[in-house]
Amino acid sequence: MSLYQEKWNELADIKAELAERDWFMGTSGNLSIKITNEPLEFLVTASGKDKRKRTAEDFLHVNSEGEKIEETHLKPSAETLLHKEIYQKTNAGCSLHVHTVANNVISELYYQDFEVVFKGQELIKAFDLWEEDAELSIPIITNHADISVLAREFGRHIKSDKGAVLIHNHGITAWGRTGFEAKKILEACEFLFQYQLSLLQINKFSRGGVLS
Amino acid sequence: MSLYQEKWNELADIKAELAERDWFMGTSGNLSIKITNEPLEFLVTASGKDKRKRTAEDFLHVNSEGEKIEETHLKPSAETLLHKEIYQKTNAGCSLHVHTVANNVISELYYQDFEVVFKGQELIKAFDLWEEDAELSIPIITNHADISVLAREFGRHIKSDKGAVLIHNHGITAWGRTGFEAKKILEACEFLFQYQLSLLQINKFSRGGVLS
Amino acid sequence: MSLYQEKWNELADIKAELAERDWFMGTSGNLSIKITNEPLEFLVTASGKDKRKRTAEDFLHVNSEGEKIEETHLKPSAETLLHKEIYQKTNAGCSLHVHTVANNVISELYYQDFEVVFKGQELIKAFDLWEEDAELSIPIITNHADISVLAREFGRHIKSDKGAVLIHNHGITAWGRTGFEAKKILEACEFLFQYQLSLLQINKFSRGGVLS
Amino acid sequence: MSLYQEKWNELADIKAELAERDWFMGTSGNLSIKITNEPLEFLVTASGKDKRKRTAEDFLHVNSEGEKIEETHLKPSAETLLHKEIYQKTNAGCSLHVHTVANNVISELYYQDFEVVFKGQELIKAFDLWEEDAELSIPIITNHADISVLAREFGRHIKSDKGAVLIHNHGITAWGRTGFEAKKILEACEFLFQYQLSLLQINKFSRGGVLS
Repeated sequence: MSLYQEKWNELADIKAELAERDWFMGTSGNLSIKITNEPLEFLVTASGKDKRKRTAEDFLHVNSEGEKIEETHLKPSAETLLHKEIYQKTNAGCSLHVHTVANNVISELYYQDFEVVFKGQELIKAFDLWEEDAELSIPIITNHADISVLAREFGRHIKSDKGAVLIHNHGITAWGRTGFEAKKILEACEFLFQYQLSLLQINKFSRGGVLS
Repeated sequence: MSLYQEKWNELADIKAELAERDWFMGTSGNLSIKITNEPLEFLVTASGKDKRKRTAEDFLHVNSEGEKIEETHLKPSAETLLHKEIYQKTNAGCSLHVHTVANNVISELYYQDFEVVFKGQELIKAFDLWEEDAELSIPIITNHADISVLAREFGRHIKSDKGAVLIHNHGITAWGRTGFEAKKILEACEFLFQYQLSLLQINKFSRGGVLS
Repeated sequence: MSLYQEKWNELADIKAELAERDWFMGTSGNLSIKITNEPLEFLVTASGKDKRKRTAEDFLHVNSEGEKIEETHLKPSAETLLHKEIYQKTNAGCSLHVHTVANNVISELYYQDFEVVFKGQELIKAFDLWEEDAELSIPIITNHADISVLAREFGRHIKSDKGAVLIHNHGITAWGRTGFEAKKILEACEFLFQYQLSLLQINKFSRGGVLS
Repeated sequence: MSLYQEKWNELADIKAELAERDWFMGTSGNLSIKITNEPLEFLVTASGKDKRKRTAEDFLHVNSEGEKIEETHLKPSAETLLHKEIYQKTNAGCSLHVHTVANNVISELYYQDFEVVFKGQELIKAFDLWEEDAELSIPIITNHADISVLAREFGRHIKSDKGAVLIHNHGITAWGRTGFEAKKILEACEFLFQYQLSLLQINKFSRGGVLS
């Protein structure tokens, strides 16, 4: 199996798994996986497809600028620019953008803080935070209508080979060195968001294990 | 494969997908898909069937008045009149009516307002609302016991080839030019409803991204 | 296929469907389906089985007193007495007892009222309540530790070929003339319970469509 | 089929079932099953694997100290020490550690009480508590960063062949004499946690069936 086919299958499997959780409601969301470093090339979801189906038109092959490099009528997702930022700035190998009710609600509740912070939670270890007092901060950025402005703002928060950024009322983008790691980061974030919302629903706020 | 069979399969696939999410609780819900424009003919769910099963008796072939045009013991869903309104007034090709806890609760909470409004949410783009300040209004109508009265009231709110209307404590009807688009509209609505309920559960109200 | 085998398969399918929704948490729940009227005989779930698996030991053949009438090491569910009450008092053909978080919470919240009442909800039509002002009352009874006391109290509330009774912090029993109808009644109840809890979570109480 | 293979399959089936419920978010969680008593040997999940997949590298064969006793590049889960405590102190045959939103939130809300207590709930019978006034107490321990300190503290609460312990913001460990029993205990706990959170979300607190 070629590297291209291998990466295609890996991304298709991840897509199927996220689709099963209904993380692409209303055809939202987009995914990508890196194929080669030099030149930088990756697969990205085609625009306007049903992500619950597995077809030969699910992904496109694009270059470092996110432009398609194969003969096809398909169009890369409008948000390919955000994936490009990640691959250009880090050694990440996979990037996942999804909308969930929890991530959008968190992005709304903590928008004024520019971030949501987690501490004292076992699951922040997914981000390699092992110290007892470690804090995980997930930035929340404005959902600029102009996608190039959004991509630039997004790029400012890409500081590691794995990470996550919330866009205000526009889902989360999580990335990692492999598809497996990107999925791990994404799941850890969603778990933490649901945890926080559950506490808030009973009028409790937790930061660092202390209720207030 | 005939056009009839193709449309049958498309609707059966959509039914299976919505059934998997448990959007037909208590045998509620009904679906339809257009076969031809002239004369207007469509498939609609038969009354009293288990929507988690896939059988040859799931749908009936009906004419522009919603009357069956095949020899069968089956009866079209009592709410076929609502589907008929959509096909007569627009170029829609598919219409989906489902009950979810979220859509019924929203229909109850905002009933006095005659509508629920969303703004500043990425997912309203499913309705082709791209402007930065765009607002999505989903009308909420009274659940008239007389189905012809309900259909007439429902018809007043059909203004586009895609759209959605909430019926008070009686689910949502979403439609689009294709089955895929109808499903997209429906999913976007359900996402927005769940989002709104989640905010309300923590005593926050959001309209246009400002918490109050 | 014999009547016995047909009924077995029907109940096994229902079990699989409810198991998929996780309505048998902690091995809770029990199900039955009638085979013959004279003499009254039915199938009931065997005690202590994993309801997510489909095996030849899932159900037992019992008589009108709920005593096994086949050579087997299996024991009928301890709550077979409740199923027996239903078949003795009505023409019901299937009875389903499940624990869900929603039905247990509702049984706790409305325990002092001896019932939970729904009005103005489309889904109460599952109970054949078609009038505009129709009210659905689901009784809530005490969870007597003595199963024969529980069965007698339960029996007092069996008034129709289809219905449902909540037992305080001990799930719901729903029944109908067929397996399909029992499932419909059960799903309608669960939907209404979830609806009510969702409203209560945002400090709203609805009865008959008026918020207070 | 060898005992080894039989136990492997049993644990793999349990893993698949829990994975389907998304109880291993962010690659969290670990599982074990005993193979022999003398010498004490068990299978435990390998570190860093995708628990939604079923592979020949999912588990390792370890001895009574949790050290691997087969030639392999795999590493036992870092929390193998906790499983070891259970097998050394009881006749348990299976132990399951998972993170759910509900169990982490409960561990946070009741952390100051050192336990969460359930009473008047049918599902506490999963713990063989049959008396009418029986109380189920699930201990909540501090999430010590040093795994050997955590294991020692954890060990203090292992008092029976079946049981469960919450670790503060670090999930639950549930065990039983068989895989089936461990799963039953785990499911009963999760059900009770979700029940409690649902009551708390509507500002009600229940202990022993009395609302306050």
